[in-house]
Amino acid sequence: MPTSASNVVLIAGGVGGARMAEGLARALPAGALTVIANVGDDDDFYGLRVCPDIDTLIYTLSDRIDRKQGWGVADDTVRALDVLRTLAAPTWMKLGDADFGLHIWRSWQLAAGNSLTQITQEAAKRLGARARILPASDDPIRTKLRTADGWMDFQPWFVGRRCEPEVLELRYDGAEKAKASTEALAAIEAAELIVFAPSNPLLSIEPILGIDGFRSAITASRALRIGVSPLIGGKAVKGPLARLLTGLGIETTTTGVAERYNGLLDGFAIDTQDLVETDDLQERGLSVLPTDILMRNPEDAERLAVEILTWAAALQGHCERAAS
Amino acid sequence: MPTSASNVVLIAGGVGGARMAEGLARALPAGALTVIANVGDDDDFYGLRVCPDIDTLIYTLSDRIDRKQGWGVADDTVRALDVLRTLAAPTWMKLGDADFGLHIWRSWQLAAGNSLTQITQEAAKRLGARARILPASDDPIRTKLRTADGWMDFQPWFVGRRCEPEVLELRYDGAEKAKASTEALAAIEAAELIVFAPSNPLLSIEPILGIDGFRSAITASRALRIGVSPLIGGKAVKGPLARLLTGLGIETTTTGVAERYNGLLDGFAIDTQDLVETDDLQERGLSVLPTDILMRNPEDAERLAVEILTWAAALQGHCERAAS
Repeated sequence: MPTSASNVVLIAGGVGGARMAEGLARALPAGALTVIANVGDDDDFYGLRVCPDIDTLIYTLSDRIDRKQGWGVADDTVRALDVLRTLAAPTWMKLGDADFGLHIWRSWQLAAGNSLTQITQEAAKRLGARARILPASDDPIRTKLRTADGWMDFQPWFVGRRCEPEVLELRYDGAEKAKASTEALAAIEAAELIVFAPSNPLLSIEPILGIDGFRSAITASRALRIGVSPLIGGKAVKGPLARLLTGLGIETTTTGVAERYNGLLDGFAIDTQDLVETDDLQERGLSVLPTDILMRNPEDAERLAVEILTWAAALQGHCERAAS
Repeated sequence: MPTSASNVVLIAGGVGGARMAEGLARALPAGALTVIANVGDDDDFYGLRVCPDIDTLIYTLSDRIDRKQGWGVADDTVRALDVLRTLAAPTWMKLGDADFGLHIWRSWQLAAGNSLTQITQEAAKRLGARARILPASDDPIRTKLRTADGWMDFQPWFVGRRCEPEVLELRYDGAEKAKASTEALAAIEAAELIVFAPSNPLLSIEPILGIDGFRSAITASRALRIGVSPLIGGKAVKGPLARLLTGLGIETTTTGVAERYNGLLDGFAIDTQDLVETDDLQERGLSVLPTDILMRNPEDAERLAVEILTWAAALQGHCERAAS
């Protein structure tokens, strides 16, 4: 039996975020989980809006995901993309046919004046995602990366160039002007527990925290705030995190990552391989849960979620006792 | 050996139009055929522009067509459509995945400011269509049908309701204001032979002739003008023609159809089953070619095309001798 928490918010992006969401959705009662998703990776392809982090969340939480690659629909075909290639369109973004169905629908709904929040919730419900998914904002936020080749959009760098050009600087275009999602802020206010997924903090979490209102809402929240490390033994589980940190002169350690959260966390779940950093983290005022943070499959993710929820309940109990 | 005609224009729509185009493309030297396509059946689905007559021409002329149904891409899948159905979108228009590739590309190109003429020619070339395909106009023309249920758009009537509600009146919205394609008018001016495909004259040919400039360009042309009957033994080969004619009080005979062309034709190719109408047609000043007009397969279509081209060459020779 996990916990009876009824209001958990996960702040997430990427494959690690979706896996953590799946674990929490399995561990929590139905309706207890709200995922706030990064939109900094969003981009338009052939005039269709693609939201990779939202899509990966929907597909993972509805069991449609291609588990081998971590994104896209399992056993999807690429007939539309093949035609687009024949028509000389750039096709480095691997959009499958079922996947196109969602992008077509989303773009159609956006053009009809519906908000990304409405559209995302409707798609998640219709496709059977087992959690509420909220984009961090209805306004466009676009992560840009400065490399030796100049400023690049996220997807052309991440997918098109396979993270090859080293990143010297990051910015989140639109984040300053973007309005935080009202629904997401309300979820944070109502939360008992806020979990930061083991996502890339620079590419998935900070584009959310950069939106006016999020950081203060999280600070003001009475919820316990737990981070989950995206590093194991100082290496990224998946994706370009380690190289990105190095390129930007950030320490590739759980402590280096924890510092990015800049006072937002009460506790940090780290891998036992990084146990040596416990003192450093505790010195920064963080409670530490050392465990196996690798999520190879949904069962792993659920086990990790249960551990985090149990630990969080214990921490919360401790705080309440200390306060009374 | 067919003919050496180097400038043939086919005016076409629907499955009959695409089959005639294929026959002529096979019979003529490369580069000799230009097809002017109806756009009155065009419609938008999920914000994507679908041009059924142009698509059927492209797929037929590039050997991608589903020959059994006469439209769509052979062996296409419907994964995107399945997702759209799960998302509660209307899915009565059967758009396949490869097919979506073309619609996505076209809509993207239109949004970028390219004309339907540019887009259609590029798609036809890239997809390997063996003829030049020109939309009758870059402006939207939409065939509307008045039924007992009120005015309906074409596709909801044709596909959505399977031509069920009887048609009491037809109109071609936008045709009066539409500008005829410059390229199409130039092709008509340069043509030695203009063929009207065995398409539905009301749904495929008249939306083109209703555009200002087409009728006069065809009348002014020195080309020989040949119609091909869409009826066999007073019945439509395919589609709703016979019911449509009856509903509108038009005679379901080749003569009834020929009269719709209203002086535009020099000759009319009819099925031998309608031989009895030869005198009626000749009385209206038409030369008559009685033959087997049913196109079951590309070989049939080529045989019919060769007969029409040979007959046209003979008629042309006769006219030239008569004039000299």
